[in-house]
Amino acid sequence: MSDLTVAAAQRCVIEAMKRLGTESVPLQQAFGRVLAADIKANRDQPPYDVSAMDGFAIRSADVANAPVVLEIIEDIKAGDMPRKTVQPGQCARIMTGAPVPSGADAVIRVEDTEAVSETQVRINVAVKPHNDIRDQGESMRTDEVVLTAGTTITPGVVGMLAMVKAASVEVWRLPRVAILSTGDELEGLEEPFDANKIPDANSYALMAQVQALGIEPVLLGIARDEPSHLKEMLQRGLQFDVLLVSGGSSVGVHDYVRPTLEALGVQMKFWRVQMKPGHPMAFGVAPLTWVFGLPGNPVSGMVCFEEFVGPALRYITGHANLFRRTVMAKLARDVKHKHSRTEFVRVMLGRDSDGFTATPTGDQGSGILRSMAMAEGLMIVPAECKGLVAGEQVTVQLLDGTAYQDEAGE
Amino acid sequence: MSDLTVAAAQRCVIEAMKRLGTESVPLQQAFGRVLAADIKANRDQPPYDVSAMDGFAIRSADVANAPVVLEIIEDIKAGDMPRKTVQPGQCARIMTGAPVPSGADAVIRVEDTEAVSETQVRINVAVKPHNDIRDQGESMRTDEVVLTAGTTITPGVVGMLAMVKAASVEVWRLPRVAILSTGDELEGLEEPFDANKIPDANSYALMAQVQALGIEPVLLGIARDEPSHLKEMLQRGLQFDVLLVSGGSSVGVHDYVRPTLEALGVQMKFWRVQMKPGHPMAFGVAPLTWVFGLPGNPVSGMVCFEEFVGPALRYITGHANLFRRTVMAKLARDVKHKHSRTEFVRVMLGRDSDGFTATPTGDQGSGILRSMAMAEGLMIVPAECKGLVAGEQVTVQLLDGTAYQDEAGE
Repeated sequence: MSDLTVAAAQRCVIEAMKRLGTESVPLQQAFGRVLAADIKANRDQPPYDVSAMDGFAIRSADVANAPVVLEIIEDIKAGDMPRKTVQPGQCARIMTGAPVPSGADAVIRVEDTEAVSETQVRINVAVKPHNDIRDQGESMRTDEVVLTAGTTITPGVVGMLAMVKAASVEVWRLPRVAILSTGDELEGLEEPFDANKIPDANSYALMAQVQALGIEPVLLGIARDEPSHLKEMLQRGLQFDVLLVSGGSSVGVHDYVRPTLEALGVQMKFWRVQMKPGHPMAFGVAPLTWVFGLPGNPVSGMVCFEEFVGPALRYITGHANLFRRTVMAKLARDVKHKHSRTEFVRVMLGRDSDGFTATPTGDQGSGILRSMAMAEGLMIVPAECKGLVAGEQVTVQLLDGTAYQDEAGE
Repeated sequence: MSDLTVAAAQRCVIEAMKRLGTESVPLQQAFGRVLAADIKANRDQPPYDVSAMDGFAIRSADVANAPVVLEIIEDIKAGDMPRKTVQPGQCARIMTGAPVPSGADAVIRVEDTEAVSETQVRINVAVKPHNDIRDQGESMRTDEVVLTAGTTITPGVVGMLAMVKAASVEVWRLPRVAILSTGDELEGLEEPFDANKIPDANSYALMAQVQALGIEPVLLGIARDEPSHLKEMLQRGLQFDVLLVSGGSSVGVHDYVRPTLEALGVQMKFWRVQMKPGHPMAFGVAPLTWVFGLPGNPVSGMVCFEEFVGPALRYITGHANLFRRTVMAKLARDVKHKHSRTEFVRVMLGRDSDGFTATPTGDQGSGILRSMAMAEGLMIVPAECKGLVAGEQVTVQLLDGTAYQDEAGE
């Protein structure tokens, strides 16, 4: 099997994905999930014509020659129903959201009035009929579809769901995700210090990447380079919907992962991708499980997660937008590129008068996890690129931590 | 007190904030939090010179006239320590991450070799000394500060923390946040349907905005327009670090919130901001509690949250970047602006060859929650602006749901 391009590998992964059915969750736990069914309004909203302001419900004809003094016949709060009809020369004090009384055809905001007495008010401006009135059903009409299946539940969507009294909502199920690191050289987080070993950073970096998608993964720990132990650990992983195996997918003789996965019935779709970092990036399908073989270098593993696993998990969870948002940025310094593979260069983002700037985070060695910890984005260097020079516009995928900036906009 | 500009109100809020002390959390729960102390490396990383590739550790002088056949004296896996010294004419099979044996000064990747027999390999390329070797301490040196206090814990940072065996980390404490809606017209999510009432959308929209910042708020429910009930509810809210009060801060006679808060010892800093939506936006400080009075219109409340509460919660939780990321976008159609207030127009984002486009989400009425549910960003229209025309470059704050897009970058 020849190496796939990044785009071909992404297509291969996404085509193998499906959703896992739906479940009902309370609205309090719905943020970030994806609606699995259309949502209809259960009422007209507003339920009647309401005031858009705190002020006075009036007859617009009465105030054509403002200023004019009107008699206050009633006091209507939000939640009250009016009891009287506004006759010529009369008005009702009214609160934002309160029903407009019959007879009245407009609202004057309190700032445009002056108190004369307990029962009289001076109206200082003329207004057209309908001024500051919100119509019944303006926001939504009973049985109208107000949110469609496939909508990601943002805070605004949560507000809409509360507005139609959706105390629980049908959403796509989250996959159960397991993470397994492999390699005798690894030292677990809770294991004692051994100067000759390398701490297992991958399990935790991948864990946080999964958590960032709203899924709590299960860490299976470290599989040693011993066939029966590896097999047992992979079998455990194949009980999950998604299994991420870190390390063990390169071409060395000690890599038992590939044959063991195949012996366990995993049909491998690809083993390499034309990318840097991340060349040994594998993907396979088992009867119950999607299996991703991620490179053992922590940075490579994280980049491969971003390009393949993240979009797959977004697909499974029902999202329409699968890929990290990209922005154009001005490259701050020259970047060499001689590979015929797509390169993902870790960059920090800045701003100048033209927009974003992108500065590579120094040493891009795939073992240098700090470059990933500092990175705000991944600059995409296309396979055919002959090198980039400072000042060029480049494409950058935004990573976690870029949703906020240090200054308010203006 | 005169109305503040948005920038002055933001300054006033942030200046009143402080952090709430620190706590230790397991690494598994650290994603999204902020480090409260510097983190030092507990070892050299790599702990010795290691191979960057699967291949053969060789003496570079031996391969100057490649191809050349070398004797394989040992097989070094990651996690093994080499037992032999590589002499002239010899090499060791070596795995990525495994220690480079003494005698060898370079690594040749397996792709550039050919097996001759079990104990012999043909090396097909010449390489310089140090080829594909990662130096001891290249990633980090013992006691070096590898992450500084104030760093937001992204997945890359989680990986770094695991690399230094930080099984638990000291982070800034999260505030306890309470949300209180006010108004007789409101119907709670679990209350029976009443055609004359308006569902309490605000509590839930604000809840999700708080959740999006990694904080689980407490919903206090709905305070009725009855002084003793309101007082009791506000007193409960003042037991929290942050109290969000939705509604009740406009100028109507039925608004008991302001005097009740003042009677309970809350020192109000401002009551209005020169913005639309969100004019009646209040902020006050009690001995234990920061109090935000948010407009009762759901959209206004959400916009005020974005501009004031979100940055405040980001500050309290230790983040350096307090404000929503802004991007420049090309406005898709004319937008009128006659107010002397900063306006936040809900927009959807698209892309064209120049970058982002921004299209207002239709009716911008502050009661139209759907505009917020559809919005991917808030376009900032400065107070002094006389109106915007299609094609102009505008500033847009990115909202939740904009971290992903439908196509991969390239």
